[in-house]
Amino acid sequence: MNDSVFLAELSWPEVEQKISGGAAVFLPLGATEQHGHHMALNVDVIIPTAICERVARATGGLVAPTIPYGNRSQPRSGGGPAFPGTLNLSAHTFSLVVRDVIVELYRQKVRRIVVLNGHYENIWPSVEGIELALDAIGRDADLTILRMDHWEFARPETIERIFPEGYPGIELEHASVLETSIMLAVRPDLVDLSRALHDGPAKFRPYDRFPRPPAEVPPSGVLSMTEGSSAEKGEWLLADSVGRLVEIVNEEFK
Amino acid sequence: MNDSVFLAELSWPEVEQKISGGAAVFLPLGATEQHGHHMALNVDVIIPTAICERVARATGGLVAPTIPYGNRSQPRSGGGPAFPGTLNLSAHTFSLVVRDVIVELYRQKVRRIVVLNGHYENIWPSVEGIELALDAIGRDADLTILRMDHWEFARPETIERIFPEGYPGIELEHASVLETSIMLAVRPDLVDLSRALHDGPAKFRPYDRFPRPPAEVPPSGVLSMTEGSSAEKGEWLLADSVGRLVEIVNEEFK
Amino acid sequence: MNDSVFLAELSWPEVEQKISGGAAVFLPLGATEQHGHHMALNVDVIIPTAICERVARATGGLVAPTIPYGNRSQPRSGGGPAFPGTLNLSAHTFSLVVRDVIVELYRQKVRRIVVLNGHYENIWPSVEGIELALDAIGRDADLTILRMDHWEFARPETIERIFPEGYPGIELEHASVLETSIMLAVRPDLVDLSRALHDGPAKFRPYDRFPRPPAEVPPSGVLSMTEGSSAEKGEWLLADSVGRLVEIVNEEFK
Amino acid sequence: MNDSVFLAELSWPEVEQKISGGAAVFLPLGATEQHGHHMALNVDVIIPTAICERVARATGGLVAPTIPYGNRSQPRSGGGPAFPGTLNLSAHTFSLVVRDVIVELYRQKVRRIVVLNGHYENIWPSVEGIELALDAIGRDADLTILRMDHWEFARPETIERIFPEGYPGIELEHASVLETSIMLAVRPDLVDLSRALHDGPAKFRPYDRFPRPPAEVPPSGVLSMTEGSSAEKGEWLLADSVGRLVEIVNEEFK
Amino acid sequence: MNDSVFLAELSWPEVEQKISGGAAVFLPLGATEQHGHHMALNVDVIIPTAICERVARATGGLVAPTIPYGNRSQPRSGGGPAFPGTLNLSAHTFSLVVRDVIVELYRQKVRRIVVLNGHYENIWPSVEGIELALDAIGRDADLTILRMDHWEFARPETIERIFPEGYPGIELEHASVLETSIMLAVRPDLVDLSRALHDGPAKFRPYDRFPRPPAEVPPSGVLSMTEGSSAEKGEWLLADSVGRLVEIVNEEFK
Amino acid sequence: MNDSVFLAELSWPEVEQKISGGAAVFLPLGATEQHGHHMALNVDVIIPTAICERVARATGGLVAPTIPYGNRSQPRSGGGPAFPGTLNLSAHTFSLVVRDVIVELYRQKVRRIVVLNGHYENIWPSVEGIELALDAIGRDADLTILRMDHWEFARPETIERIFPEGYPGIELEHASVLETSIMLAVRPDLVDLSRALHDGPAKFRPYDRFPRPPAEVPPSGVLSMTEGSSAEKGEWLLADSVGRLVEIVNEEFK
Repeated sequence: MNDSVFLAELSWPEVEQKISGGAAVFLPLGATEQHGHHMALNVDVIIPTAICERVARATGGLVAPTIPYGNRSQPRSGGGPAFPGTLNLSAHTFSLVVRDVIVELYRQKVRRIVVLNGHYENIWPSVEGIELALDAIGRDADLTILRMDHWEFARPETIERIFPEGYPGIELEHASVLETSIMLAVRPDLVDLSRALHDGPAKFRPYDRFPRPPAEVPPSGVLSMTEGSSAEKGEWLLADSVGRLVEIVNEEFK
Repeated sequence: MNDSVFLAELSWPEVEQKISGGAAVFLPLGATEQHGHHMALNVDVIIPTAICERVARATGGLVAPTIPYGNRSQPRSGGGPAFPGTLNLSAHTFSLVVRDVIVELYRQKVRRIVVLNGHYENIWPSVEGIELALDAIGRDADLTILRMDHWEFARPETIERIFPEGYPGIELEHASVLETSIMLAVRPDLVDLSRALHDGPAKFRPYDRFPRPPAEVPPSGVLSMTEGSSAEKGEWLLADSVGRLVEIVNEEFK
Repeated sequence: MNDSVFLAELSWPEVEQKISGGAAVFLPLGATEQHGHHMALNVDVIIPTAICERVARATGGLVAPTIPYGNRSQPRSGGGPAFPGTLNLSAHTFSLVVRDVIVELYRQKVRRIVVLNGHYENIWPSVEGIELALDAIGRDADLTILRMDHWEFARPETIERIFPEGYPGIELEHASVLETSIMLAVRPDLVDLSRALHDGPAKFRPYDRFPRPPAEVPPSGVLSMTEGSSAEKGEWLLADSVGRLVEIVNEEFK
Repeated sequence: MNDSVFLAELSWPEVEQKISGGAAVFLPLGATEQHGHHMALNVDVIIPTAICERVARATGGLVAPTIPYGNRSQPRSGGGPAFPGTLNLSAHTFSLVVRDVIVELYRQKVRRIVVLNGHYENIWPSVEGIELALDAIGRDADLTILRMDHWEFARPETIERIFPEGYPGIELEHASVLETSIMLAVRPDLVDLSRALHDGPAKFRPYDRFPRPPAEVPPSGVLSMTEGSSAEKGEWLLADSVGRLVEIVNEEFK
Repeated sequence: MNDSVFLAELSWPEVEQKISGGAAVFLPLGATEQHGHHMALNVDVIIPTAICERVARATGGLVAPTIPYGNRSQPRSGGGPAFPGTLNLSAHTFSLVVRDVIVELYRQKVRRIVVLNGHYENIWPSVEGIELALDAIGRDADLTILRMDHWEFARPETIERIFPEGYPGIELEHASVLETSIMLAVRPDLVDLSRALHDGPAKFRPYDRFPRPPAEVPPSGVLSMTEGSSAEKGEWLLADSVGRLVEIVNEEFK
Repeated sequence: MNDSVFLAELSWPEVEQKISGGAAVFLPLGATEQHGHHMALNVDVIIPTAICERVARATGGLVAPTIPYGNRSQPRSGGGPAFPGTLNLSAHTFSLVVRDVIVELYRQKVRRIVVLNGHYENIWPSVEGIELALDAIGRDADLTILRMDHWEFARPETIERIFPEGYPGIELEHASVLETSIMLAVRPDLVDLSRALHDGPAKFRPYDRFPRPPAEVPPSGVLSMTEGSSAEKGEWLLADSVGRLVEIVNEEFK
């Protein structure tokens, strides 16, 4: 019908052909979460989807529909639930969705699955979702699942190029230079740098407080800073992620 | 940032402004399910999303991210799980996702919610998801949730215009003239009529059989027929749905 | 002990003998739900149980205890939860009961199961209960489960005989002519036609509203009408259901 | 309609009147479980239902539909799952059913509930079901729930009259003299003393073994003995239970 | 490293060696529950752990970490939730913990498991936890699980020696002579007999009341009496339990 | 009875007095997980319990029983499930335990709770457990819960003193110098440095693989290194944790 790598944009006979040919399926995990005054709420959906699209194209794979709601946002990593528009799933619900999709891919005879996560708080519930799927499928199954977080693939050289004065650390990289740059590269229409507040970086206490978190999230919701973001830097980061992921896929699924 | 009606394409201050102004939020419920040789698997995502987009634009509302995986496809209504590419959630998982999103919208102070469903098998689990949300929120809350299935809004006159020789019934309208026409209107790139098999309509026995369903689903996965589908008819149907839904929203949320 | 077809009225050695002889087991699904001023709350229990009893007698089967509480009644199909006496299970609870009973029947070496439903809102949770049972049992098991709703078996000729002026449709057939007639045939002591209000038929809007449903359910709880109900018509309907079900059982389980 | 005390045999306006008059609702908890060669599988359904019927009649109450499937039968108390015909629910499923029914009764404005259990293994899951209902309803609600097991009400004098040579203890009273006598009093058609094996009483080790229980359940499934059972003794026991329960209801709900 | 029988006090190579040698694993089930004015809240943790330790030492087994929180305390058996310091798990949570630990022991190739319970209200949820584990593992697995309650092992002679004037029954033996004596034997530092109130024994009505239990629990929380408790009697009871359990282990796992 | 700060070592009147005086309750979260050839499996239990004990003593608080089983160990952070003796809970089970204990503490009128975690994989399920507790309690409750991981409190100066040649990073600090030193300070009997293999540090790929993880965990299970561990360093680390936590408690609960 078309040459889309998105599974849901193909007809079932096209999907059948791809799967029977051994195509890997990429499952992007997103979230609907505040990303500052200057970006849309779908950053964690856009970025892993864009990376999966490029890697799938390079490796003959398919991209399953991105899960658009993520596990509960926390103040120290994503601003937390108080920001308008942040819509969370509970961890158990999120894990069940991941479980069901993986079990279904397995039932559909997919044996190579890459789960690419774009939202910090999804890390552990996605691990649990995979574990629950394996509880159902059996752990001696002829199946390989790789799970990863896209921000792990930025090469040290790239980080140095982007932060010549020192990297503030991934913990604060929420709605900051890395995410903003990638968004400028793939969906500049969803970024408006002129609205960025410069009220960060956040200095968090080393603990969580419930139900009233400490007032340390900057009012903007940006945990670090946005100055210096650019589409060019975004392309560097995408090149790192896509390149590394293509290598991994080729090595693991050869 | 932009004039999108999609909640996830706005920044959090934009969402905050919309919600505090009383905007209704539309939640489309989709599925990833076979729709014949001639259409993509995302028909149940595309159609309710398109309707919600138009209604939200007309009424000042917001469209939350579409749930892209639906409740288990059944042979008599959607071909069933045997078709490659159909990826199902269990009913409980699907209901929990609906519950969590509704509870979150309520927490975000949204008081007018429209759940628009595009996948037959989602009907009951979406009812349950809303019930579970109300179990958590409380049933005397200041909140109105409308739940509907887009195919309920085709006017009898339109059905007659489309099927001058008689309507085969909504039960068989899976991947058939209605859905195909709407897809031709909104995403013609995901339809290829030249590939449509003409092996329907399905004649189902009046019962379900598990785990091996009767062999009555036509090989194509189309339950009724596709001849006569056109973008023009799709626009008639969209006009019906959008028009009726705008009326309902104006009446219920005035 | 006796010649009952009800499994629970036999001793275990009698059940053992029946099962080892290949007897099919019928599981009726009921509800405790308002059925107008003129009928008891157990209509959805009585009718499928009566049909199962007759079919089991004709085919050498056994009838398992009827599940007497059903999935949440909804305004458009059963009047909804506001009517006194309506006692609902949540969908998940109902599905787990169905799952557990099916898994137990399988463990007891039953390989032919007929799930006969008598309550509209049970349709989807009973499908899910069977799916959950198969998730546990395995889908390649030597087992056949048929699931059906008793109102599917009325022959068009019978419907025409009963409604010479046109059938209002099954959606409104709650506590109306069909159910009332069957009750008059099997449990006339639980019907008092003199109390029937004639405030229907209901005209529903094509959507659900929560938590406050539209005020469209007729005060009586009867969705359509009761005039013309008779035990004779009830027997016609029972004959249709029993006859068709005997055919299905003989064909599917031969 | 009729003067039944069974809630499900009344119409909704009749139930409404009863509830608004402060009627207590009795919920019998049963099971489908082997009860020897000489009795039907529904002993645990019949007995608490019969007691509730009599007490409701004496006190103006209503009897809700008996839950006909019980928590997993165990070898030391009911013979265990190996006996044909025993159909169990898991503890969680059983507790959820109890929870849902209690929550619904409360929603229907019932404030006096008596849960009368007839199956040993239901004791704890029925406690949990009530606790779960109170977790949902709130523990400061204007509501009283009494939970009891019918065998607790046999007066010592009666036990002595029945067992002049000493009481073997309630642990072994499965399908034995007490249950058999009550069944002879209320449903003699479901008892056939001529088939009773006299292979008891069981001598159990003081522990459980899984998944293969010790071979100590007598082949008949009768844990103690049946000699000396009679309808007369059954009436003594019923009189004890009904009398004591009427006292309790009058005292607790005055 | 050391000669501990506590699994968690060994290094993994030491555990590996034990398991590959066929060691049985003992899982003590405890609770955090009031035990009168004169004893600490951890009585139900201390006693089964102490017994398991001795039996494991005698039989070459290992003791897994004791589950320190138990199923909801009830007034008639443990004083109930109203006593400060009593911290309960719900039955489902408790069963899931037991399930998970058993499944993990099986995964670790342990094939001989003894679950020794020290808290009355844990009886049924521990049975359910084992059943759930077997649902996951499969019931034809090469595995034996024994489940027992430590108070079942007191020999009649010992009970007679301890209660020369008659045994009040295990139901009331909460924080009374048996438990107090064993605590005096194993952890005298957690007992202060001078603080014991002598307000028992409790006389319970033969039913439960929710949410406000009858005021029949003695203010002290001791259900029976403490006079006559001594470390010597505690040693008698421990000798009974340990001796009997060693016999059982040797017989069942030979 | 005694001056223990462990809640379970007190009688209920003692606990009552403490709670009514406003005592904070510390809940340590542990695990049963391999920690190399040279340490016992209970490191993640011992360390947070020891810190809580000291802080409770300094601030007049109470220590609730440590949860001794943790969320599923993963290869990149704890060696993973393949090591003998590692016994995991699923994330949902672990979260439910945390939820239940917090809800119970709240019910017992505790309003100041510190959850101190000692196992990396518990981070997210403990967040979820607290969120679930607040879902039940309500988020406007008069209650403060602090959640923290003990390794966050090592001061940079201390880390520098311990690793003069550079800190390998907390990710690899499993069974390595930090944990080994603290264990040498508090439970030297559970450490045997002579058995330490020196096969680390681990070099992990930046992704997870299921169900067969990459073979990158060093055979010993030690992720980093153990040389240079000492009780003295352990005391430095404990002093940091205890000191910082006392400050936090004093500040947050003043």
